[in-house]
Amino acid sequence: MSGFSRRSLLVGGAGAVGAGAVGAFVAGRATAADVPAPAASGRVVPFFGRHQAGIVTPAQDRLYFAAFDVITDDRDELRELLAAWTLAAERMTRGLEAAPDGAVGGPYVAPPADTGEALDLPAASLTLTFGVGPSLFADAAGRDRFGISDRRPAALVHLPHFAGDNLDAGRSGGDLCVQACADDPQVAFHAVRNLARIGFGVVSLRWSQLGFGRTSSTSTAQSTPRNLFGFKDGTANLKAEETDELNRHVWVQPGDDVDWMTGGSYLVARRINMHIETWDRTSLGEQENIVGRTKGTGAPMSGGTEFTEPDFALTGTGDAPLVALGSHVRLAHPTSHGGVRILRRGYNFTDGSDGLGRLDAGLFFIAYMRDPGNQFVPMQRLLSAGDLMMEYLEHTGSALFAVLPGVGDAGGETGRASLGDGLLA
Amino acid sequence: MSGFSRRSLLVGGAGAVGAGAVGAFVAGRATAADVPAPAASGRVVPFFGRHQAGIVTPAQDRLYFAAFDVITDDRDELRELLAAWTLAAERMTRGLEAAPDGAVGGPYVAPPADTGEALDLPAASLTLTFGVGPSLFADAAGRDRFGISDRRPAALVHLPHFAGDNLDAGRSGGDLCVQACADDPQVAFHAVRNLARIGFGVVSLRWSQLGFGRTSSTSTAQSTPRNLFGFKDGTANLKAEETDELNRHVWVQPGDDVDWMTGGSYLVARRINMHIETWDRTSLGEQENIVGRTKGTGAPMSGGTEFTEPDFALTGTGDAPLVALGSHVRLAHPTSHGGVRILRRGYNFTDGSDGLGRLDAGLFFIAYMRDPGNQFVPMQRLLSAGDLMMEYLEHTGSALFAVLPGVGDAGGETGRASLGDGLLA
Repeated sequence: MSGFSRRSLLVGGAGAVGAGAVGAFVAGRATAADVPAPAASGRVVPFFGRHQAGIVTPAQDRLYFAAFDVITDDRDELRELLAAWTLAAERMTRGLEAAPDGAVGGPYVAPPADTGEALDLPAASLTLTFGVGPSLFADAAGRDRFGISDRRPAALVHLPHFAGDNLDAGRSGGDLCVQACADDPQVAFHAVRNLARIGFGVVSLRWSQLGFGRTSSTSTAQSTPRNLFGFKDGTANLKAEETDELNRHVWVQPGDDVDWMTGGSYLVARRINMHIETWDRTSLGEQENIVGRTKGTGAPMSGGTEFTEPDFALTGTGDAPLVALGSHVRLAHPTSHGGVRILRRGYNFTDGSDGLGRLDAGLFFIAYMRDPGNQFVPMQRLLSAGDLMMEYLEHTGSALFAVLPGVGDAGGETGRASLGDGLLA
Repeated sequence: MSGFSRRSLLVGGAGAVGAGAVGAFVAGRATAADVPAPAASGRVVPFFGRHQAGIVTPAQDRLYFAAFDVITDDRDELRELLAAWTLAAERMTRGLEAAPDGAVGGPYVAPPADTGEALDLPAASLTLTFGVGPSLFADAAGRDRFGISDRRPAALVHLPHFAGDNLDAGRSGGDLCVQACADDPQVAFHAVRNLARIGFGVVSLRWSQLGFGRTSSTSTAQSTPRNLFGFKDGTANLKAEETDELNRHVWVQPGDDVDWMTGGSYLVARRINMHIETWDRTSLGEQENIVGRTKGTGAPMSGGTEFTEPDFALTGTGDAPLVALGSHVRLAHPTSHGGVRILRRGYNFTDGSDGLGRLDAGLFFIAYMRDPGNQFVPMQRLLSAGDLMMEYLEHTGSALFAVLPGVGDAGGETGRASLGDGLLA
């Protein structure tokens, strides 16, 4: 990563400020480790690579996620859109405007090429991660609009219904998705807005979600953040440093599926409303029993510190296991799933109130994995059936996307010049 | 301001990081001036004072705003709530949990006294600013539920209907309001959530709004941010440094109104949807003509730099004024309002999409003033009738609150120990 950004001359200094803070951060001081990266860092996360950025990139603090419907049946238009998105995304992640003329450099008589609200803001670690949904291959009527059904990944099927699901179609699905993560939410919003604008006439925004605080760490250099139940979340998450585990659990490998997906991944998004008012009326003991960890340090109920492995066999009074049978940590643990793991990258959200005096808030769950049918689906089946926490949760949105493999630079590290090469070329 | 916070031992270091960045910020370096304060600063903004914090406090980057309905008719319960809110708010702005036992220090068999999601986060410049709406004095049926109609400020009346208003009752009004501003949105959310929780049975959340990016500067040390039209917003805003102007335009003065309001202010909130997709299809020239400033530097169309006063008399081709007659800057300028000014403190927002493929986004306008009937109301009348920008705006929420004067510490700087003393005591 570099502290360099060219959005404006002002950014050089910002980059320097950001780099200083990042230095402290990566050094792993206890003091810095619990402090999110600066809001306006000049950090640039490289766009090009074998995999897309925004998956194992250390989770930025803010999210703006968007799902689009493709409103054309013309394959060329779709391919051209993905090529245009590639160029714009690569620019914006460098802290540049969406197109060369930008917000103010074009003809006075034409609409500007960039919407301008990020003009003075640095790159802020922006990543843009793109995926395609099952409906791109077969729409609601079963039509293969783009003649790509033979390239459909076998793993890209609609998620099944889970016990307790209360899904809103207007917050679910989508032909395409963009996950924008950044240290500054205005930078993330600007990116999605400009991609939507570039797609005018080809795509229509289906739903979007702002996330105000990350709930997972994706690097050992990051501290574990807290969800809206007040607990540390994702302690045992997969981390960027676990290269072998990522190949095993996150990245699609050669021979897994259709060729073009090699180096890609699958993204499960779930909008999970938390009934926080009810949760807040339960005792500390009950909360810790449900989660299976202490609220303060996040240590498992079987003892130790945050990163101690839970001892699921250890019993206490009356021979009851210290980590309850229905606790979240037990049912989500790899030992309950034959060693299978996922990379979580979720965010806390709030969308105001629900009309009944309660906050409309919760966790926008995002997870990356190599094979959802063998990873998320069995996990969620077990959790939705048995997790004590389910009493306080309501899944209101759901989507699955095949995350495209990364794009190479002009030199051709990957042999792909645009998002969607391999799928549409 | 101090870099000290006691939420956890970890925060000391964070404070030091924050203080360093703030130092650079206040020094006014061009590089730092365009960089918002760090997201996780340990800065503590003092809660106690003659005026409430969060008005002339340099505008933090993130907002969570909530309006509540009082659901009791018992004046004592309301007074006790405001006393409890005072204690909790003062603690949280210091980076502490909402109550002494906090999230994990209380009895195991009782619900925790704090919800915990800000446990490891520093103070982050949190300010909490409280107000009371007209409906507290006379509800929809005209009832004076709390026997306070004789203390109603004359200036606290429902705002009139303005041309083009398309207000949603579910996003308007309220008996009480809390404006939470912070460098970290999770800190602002945590504060509102814990205040709502303390008010269980006394108040019910009516509406709330997350703001992801500030659109105004309230200090000469801050750079001017951009709204979602991509323009710098609030260049000519009132600033904390203009003490005389604040007394003239923002703070209620002795003799203005009911005694207890001295040192208070009035807050106008307007949720303004921006039709950004339409705006994005207009030419740069048209955009600049509408705003009356250039998009790049924010200079008035009559020339100069951002802080040059517009020359409304200067004409160009065909004797047309360079700053158009219907431009926003001309109609909002103090010269169009007999010298009257307001202190703006708004935020960009997005609440997902609107079901028609467009972003539900805009400006959550917040402004503070001494007398809304002679400041906001005539301004908005002129703007809603003549501002060229109105074509791209839709006001969807509206509220007016009397902002309580500040609270003193135990020593009694103000003679008030709790929010609402003077109104309810």
